[in-house]
Amino acid sequence: MYYSVRMRSAQGGDHEAGGRHISGAEQLVPPAELTAVAGEMLERALSHSRGRADFIQITVEAVRREEITTVPLLPVTTIAAADTAGGRRAAQAVLVQKGVSADAAAKGVEALTSLPGSMRGAMVLCAVSGKRLDDRGDRGIRVSRMDATDKRQLAASLQQQGLVSSHVQEAIVLAAKVAAAPGMVAELCWSDDPEYTAGYVASAGGYVRFPHLKDYGNPVGGRVFFVQPDCDLAILGDYLERRPVTVAVPGGEEEQ
Amino acid sequence: MYYSVRMRSAQGGDHEAGGRHISGAEQLVPPAELTAVAGEMLERALSHSRGRADFIQITVEAVRREEITTVPLLPVTTIAAADTAGGRRAAQAVLVQKGVSADAAAKGVEALTSLPGSMRGAMVLCAVSGKRLDDRGDRGIRVSRMDATDKRQLAASLQQQGLVSSHVQEAIVLAAKVAAAPGMVAELCWSDDPEYTAGYVASAGGYVRFPHLKDYGNPVGGRVFFVQPDCDLAILGDYLERRPVTVAVPGGEEEQ
Repeated sequence: MYYSVRMRSAQGGDHEAGGRHISGAEQLVPPAELTAVAGEMLERALSHSRGRADFIQITVEAVRREEITTVPLLPVTTIAAADTAGGRRAAQAVLVQKGVSADAAAKGVEALTSLPGSMRGAMVLCAVSGKRLDDRGDRGIRVSRMDATDKRQLAASLQQQGLVSSHVQEAIVLAAKVAAAPGMVAELCWSDDPEYTAGYVASAGGYVRFPHLKDYGNPVGGRVFFVQPDCDLAILGDYLERRPVTVAVPGGEEEQ
Repeated sequence: MYYSVRMRSAQGGDHEAGGRHISGAEQLVPPAELTAVAGEMLERALSHSRGRADFIQITVEAVRREEITTVPLLPVTTIAAADTAGGRRAAQAVLVQKGVSADAAAKGVEALTSLPGSMRGAMVLCAVSGKRLDDRGDRGIRVSRMDATDKRQLAASLQQQGLVSSHVQEAIVLAAKVAAAPGMVAELCWSDDPEYTAGYVASAGGYVRFPHLKDYGNPVGGRVFFVQPDCDLAILGDYLERRPVTVAVPGGEEEQ
């Protein structure tokens, strides 16, 4: 038995009551780690650079081992650009390499750029037309119930590549689940953390990191999933939100 | 700054998804205790006599000190009856002493007795007619955001009276908040814990405990609030569900 542990936090009250999203976290943990992980998530919500949360919700759900799907870790590469504008141009080019139309790639960047506030979840756009396909509005689809088989090994492996931020580790786990989704072509993301300017484009072929996809101090971030035109949104949503997934870390112990 | 920490747990999925209620807990704690209290609540949900929860939700909300109302602890007396039927007759008599009509008292006992399953919250009945006044169905009104100023002193004081169960301690804190509610006449409660047969009748005048208000092994419990006929249910609900209250424990340190 494992537990899916999810945390979301906000300032100014509950998200549903108009609170501003502060942070979120996801882990799949064995029973012995449950209390410690929940405690770490609480601490984190109270010390986030976006502000101190005054609303925190932790949801714990039992998950049977046989329910958990394993997906591969994505290889990471970095494309450096001098500034945000250069980074976004490079990200668009990588999206096109991954099978997104130039039009849809441009619309995806524009959709994130013009967000009035951070989205908790992701927008789903058609990879051909760039049209938004989901009906979730500001909430979007929130990817949930994923973790890495061996977080220590993942952290060590990322550190060898000069990537020490906890943001990268979490994003890589999330991106691996997303890349394996039915109908997924590619993902574009930049963070809502004002101190964190990096973002990425990911697909089943790999995770391409851009150190500057937004300006320092900008607190607005989000995700776009580019999907095949015939993608079944109900199946996609169920996989992303509900199916427990562990990301296999090469060389790591299989903790889960 | 303090934190209201609430836990609810269920088996078979989320309460809203049809899961069976396992346990709940409420505390108002200073920041330094937040992580430990959340951890204890998790442990408790996983080791409850009603079963092991597979869904647990912990909600943390910041509360300003000036928002917290202080109410008095209720004096505790015990009325022993030989069995459940005798206990319920005695409870009805005490309800009548406290200003509930004989008819309403009988209807309240009957309402709890005939519950098909445990209620998370309380039913609100008119103390004169015995008619149910709230429209919350199986959910009822759930009392939230209360704690004692000094839990150690409260436990010590109850222990001197031979009351060592954590159920009693929590019930006494909840009953003190309820007794101070606008329009409240009296409360009748027995637990959903199958191993716990005791229950109580409480009002501003005191907390009267009955060691047998239901049979051992019975997992169905609930609460009835008897209110004045002109009670404003919106004000009552807001007070019970949202107003942070600490119960002043005589001789205790004022921790909060």
